[in-house]
Amino acid sequence: MNYPLLETIQSPADLRRLPRTELKRLATELREFVLHSVSQTGGHLSSNLGTVELTIALHYVFNTPEDRLVWDVGHQTYPHKILTGRRDRMHTLRQFGGISGFPRRDESPYDTFGTAHSSTSISAALGMALAAKQKGEDRRAVAIIGDGAMTAGMAFEALNNAGVQHAVGLADMLVVLNDNDMSISPPVGALNKYLARLMSGSFYAAAREGAKAVLKNAPPLFELARRFEEHAKGMVVPGTIFEEFGFTYVGPIDGHDLDALIPTLENLRARKGPHFLHVVTKKGYGYKLAEADPIAYHGPGKFDPAQGLVKPATPPKTTFTQVFGQWLCDMAEADPKLVAITPAMREGSGMVEFHKRFPTRYHDVGIAEQHALTFAAGLACEGLKPVVAIYSTFLQRAYDQLIHDVALQKLPMVLALDRAGVVGADGATHMGAFDIAFLRCIPNVSVLTPADENECRQLLYTAHLQDHPVAVRYPRGAGVGTEIQKEMTAVPFGKGEVRRRGQRIAILAFGTLLYPALQAADKLDATVANMRFVKPLDAALVEELARSHDALVTVEEGCAMGGAGSAVAEALHAAGLQTPVLMLGFKDEFVEHGDPAKLLALLGLDAEGIERSILQRFGAKLELVKPAANQ
Amino acid sequence: MNYPLLETIQSPADLRRLPRTELKRLATELREFVLHSVSQTGGHLSSNLGTVELTIALHYVFNTPEDRLVWDVGHQTYPHKILTGRRDRMHTLRQFGGISGFPRRDESPYDTFGTAHSSTSISAALGMALAAKQKGEDRRAVAIIGDGAMTAGMAFEALNNAGVQHAVGLADMLVVLNDNDMSISPPVGALNKYLARLMSGSFYAAAREGAKAVLKNAPPLFELARRFEEHAKGMVVPGTIFEEFGFTYVGPIDGHDLDALIPTLENLRARKGPHFLHVVTKKGYGYKLAEADPIAYHGPGKFDPAQGLVKPATPPKTTFTQVFGQWLCDMAEADPKLVAITPAMREGSGMVEFHKRFPTRYHDVGIAEQHALTFAAGLACEGLKPVVAIYSTFLQRAYDQLIHDVALQKLPMVLALDRAGVVGADGATHMGAFDIAFLRCIPNVSVLTPADENECRQLLYTAHLQDHPVAVRYPRGAGVGTEIQKEMTAVPFGKGEVRRRGQRIAILAFGTLLYPALQAADKLDATVANMRFVKPLDAALVEELARSHDALVTVEEGCAMGGAGSAVAEALHAAGLQTPVLMLGFKDEFVEHGDPAKLLALLGLDAEGIERSILQRFGAKLELVKPAANQ
Repeated sequence: MNYPLLETIQSPADLRRLPRTELKRLATELREFVLHSVSQTGGHLSSNLGTVELTIALHYVFNTPEDRLVWDVGHQTYPHKILTGRRDRMHTLRQFGGISGFPRRDESPYDTFGTAHSSTSISAALGMALAAKQKGEDRRAVAIIGDGAMTAGMAFEALNNAGVQHAVGLADMLVVLNDNDMSISPPVGALNKYLARLMSGSFYAAAREGAKAVLKNAPPLFELARRFEEHAKGMVVPGTIFEEFGFTYVGPIDGHDLDALIPTLENLRARKGPHFLHVVTKKGYGYKLAEADPIAYHGPGKFDPAQGLVKPATPPKTTFTQVFGQWLCDMAEADPKLVAITPAMREGSGMVEFHKRFPTRYHDVGIAEQHALTFAAGLACEGLKPVVAIYSTFLQRAYDQLIHDVALQKLPMVLALDRAGVVGADGATHMGAFDIAFLRCIPNVSVLTPADENECRQLLYTAHLQDHPVAVRYPRGAGVGTEIQKEMTAVPFGKGEVRRRGQRIAILAFGTLLYPALQAADKLDATVANMRFVKPLDAALVEELARSHDALVTVEEGCAMGGAGSAVAEALHAAGLQTPVLMLGFKDEFVEHGDPAKLLALLGLDAEGIERSILQRFGAKLELVKPAANQ
Repeated sequence: MNYPLLETIQSPADLRRLPRTELKRLATELREFVLHSVSQTGGHLSSNLGTVELTIALHYVFNTPEDRLVWDVGHQTYPHKILTGRRDRMHTLRQFGGISGFPRRDESPYDTFGTAHSSTSISAALGMALAAKQKGEDRRAVAIIGDGAMTAGMAFEALNNAGVQHAVGLADMLVVLNDNDMSISPPVGALNKYLARLMSGSFYAAAREGAKAVLKNAPPLFELARRFEEHAKGMVVPGTIFEEFGFTYVGPIDGHDLDALIPTLENLRARKGPHFLHVVTKKGYGYKLAEADPIAYHGPGKFDPAQGLVKPATPPKTTFTQVFGQWLCDMAEADPKLVAITPAMREGSGMVEFHKRFPTRYHDVGIAEQHALTFAAGLACEGLKPVVAIYSTFLQRAYDQLIHDVALQKLPMVLALDRAGVVGADGATHMGAFDIAFLRCIPNVSVLTPADENECRQLLYTAHLQDHPVAVRYPRGAGVGTEIQKEMTAVPFGKGEVRRRGQRIAILAFGTLLYPALQAADKLDATVANMRFVKPLDAALVEELARSHDALVTVEEGCAMGGAGSAVAEALHAAGLQTPVLMLGFKDEFVEHGDPAKLLALLGLDAEGIERSILQRFGAKLELVKPAANQ
């Protein structure tokens, strides 16, 4: 591959030295580079092919990094990374020690705000814009946000706050709506319909004609001027809803047409106050296969660009996500009261089949975690049995709703927490590290940690039978590959099981780390319990093991602080037992991106690490200590 | 007082038997009753005087409880409670064992959904409406929501989801916007401006005229019909933003005019699909003093209605809220980089003075906790030093933003957590029970627990000096009344102090319960440490105390599960110490409403309770146990 022009760009300053006539060629090379690079590393593809021209135009027009670009979600920032000095590190993307798949403040001064979870960009950019006012600095802040991300409440909160006069002045900011009509799941909700209407109606046609006629001839930009004037007069007839929010609305314009993008952005940059630019792009643009199936090419693994994605020869191992998806269908078959809710993660949560088979019992509420939980609470009030499928890290978005609307009212509901634990390539923003700690303190909520695929199915079933909210947490990817029993059997609620009888040391495993714990135990001849329940904790089993062993070791794939190990310690103190406990879990730091198995090893949570930690802590005493007389 | 008509109403069925001509008289009596009742018990006044007619009209027209009324926030439900069989319990309002100040599912079948935190009603009502579809039941769900609550993201998420076709059908629901132009703080944001424009412009005038002309003559409601027709045709020119969201918009109508409310609601009830009724009311309506100053009468204590509120003869004790407000002004004076953010709680958070003195450094972002945190993160990125004042229970709304936008990027910020602990009359929904547990598991975040007023000031100062996010939590109301030193002195970070040297038992107090702990210690001759920091925990002090005492007792005003005591247990295990720990805090249940001192006593967290718990657990051994040889 050859990228003669792209290779001259070490920073946006180089880009800004190019004549405008060269930018199309640059876009072609950049798109090629993105495609080639992602095909080698895996990563997000469709979205990055869609933002090539927009990225070039933004860095060409704005004085980055002095002007602040905040990329919402941030998975579409590969072109941005390539243009801001990270081209030759793209081969390390999302790998341990390599560059992140998202913007990171510690990676580049051009990454002004770390993103990954949706819909934070307008809030952050508004903060930056008002800080500039406060400090008397003349700079712009730009939020680039997709149409899916616009549906989250926090984007609305930010819009509502951004378009009005603040005591320090009006924010000099631009919101670029990158409208590509596709969040990860097909978009839902009124806003998407509205945007589609803006694009399809006479409104769009007129705007497009106007823009074409005018923009080709450069300033004075009549069309734009007319809009500003209208705005300044304060239209009595409402314009777009964005104008109702105090923004000047410009668009929709073609986000792949540099001749439309650049003069429009130049004009907007010259103006003060809050502006809203509606840009239309196509996910996967320029790569036919991705254009045809942007969902398949949303986040592919490695592939040959000439050939496209191919089905792997050997089918991959069954993932926990698939176990959930299958259980959901089977349970729905058995229980007509079951309804399932997803905040825009149909594919990621394994609900495609359920959606197909039970369309009237499937609710994709959009990127709207808060609403998802309270909506589910409303369903539960009427006697339905909601299953909310939500990633551990995204449940953080609905924490208050879980406490205030679900737990306080003790409404029966299953929370299926996927991606609980290390997540691999997505890194710190997506790690499911905190759910055990933030869930177990909530009254009326139970927390279940299946150890393998079959137990996942059985614990989901067990959860569904309860009269209160129950979270079942399971990690990304596959487990050890246990055979899955079709028949659903309830597990005794709040009861763990001893899986290996050994001596001196008892390992209490919560979740899939049971298996490395068993391996470690074989070396040490330790006892191992599969605890299954963080809450209600099997206190009787904890006490029995504490009385019959010299020390306990807790193992969990989540933060150690306040986690399951901490619950065990609480139980021991409540029982007046003084058996030492070694708590293994995540340290008090964020876990970065990388291969999950490698990360677990680094965290000391593989079999060797567990063994090593036990020997370090208790090794010298293993042969010495007698069962202590407990208080 | 005499309420001859009101006394005939034991339930809405009685109400629905009244001729319409009687309803005005009923409204007069109901308003009188509300005023009299609140003047005796304290509670929310302005909002309840504003919803008298609306409540009567809703129960008159809708077939409650079969039709579901969901009251957003719910502090305006006194008329609803009075009409639904709870008139003779109103004197117990918000008192221990009495009825709640908010709707509660366990209090009445007419309370279909418990509320208190803002903006949950549309989500819940949508869940109920779609559940009815699913079950083939013909009922309506009604959300009644204020204009302040409409600004929260989750209301937008729900609107976005409610107005579109679901696989199960269109939701038969009504959203009543109770527009009274006043959340607790003056409203901010574009939506409020928009609503004001709807009311003040030619649009409103025309609608009002139309409505007046038409509604007096009852059906066919021409105006309404015309709107429905317009909607059905799919207007190209946008209507109100609510129509963009797929709702039929009707209004604004006068929410104190039963002759407008009842026919409009009757018409709306007869129709399927999602409808939006914009009602304009006046807070404090009918009581001149409250109309003139609705903020003062928002939540008064007891008063004489004839006289109104009077300044207490003796000034009340300084509250922690005031300590914070004063510190904020002093700190802003000293540090020009300080900026303060509130999610619509200027009064409650003690920021009125700051707003007056530093208007350009004050940001009220509306009821928008998520945005508040990420907006603050944006400010921090630019080198400003944000102080976010937020109640403990409302920080639950911004949990993901704290983790993902603030902590992960290690942005310096002070979180001033008011109402941490029991809150008294507001009850379970407002208790600040979980913050220690949900905060201490987050990397890069510190958690500080001042013991008294002066320490609160000094720890806020200490927090402000740090290079990372620091939460300072303090309870509602006043502390012991320590003298406040004007001079600000940094406390050594992560260091506690021994306040009393005793023997055998060491009490580790986190926060204001230090003082009852000291009283208990006097009886028992126990050691007492003022720990000050939950995180970073003073592990050296914990270890020293563990080595020099037979047992530790932790005391905190928050949930025991995963709380500060749990952190102490973790530290002991990490150090290989086996000193027994008794963890005192909230049990694993929600704390109900009532007098805070009484609640603390019931929870065993007053001096007597602490002493009692220690004696129960360790009493028999107090004379027996020698310092144990630790591992």
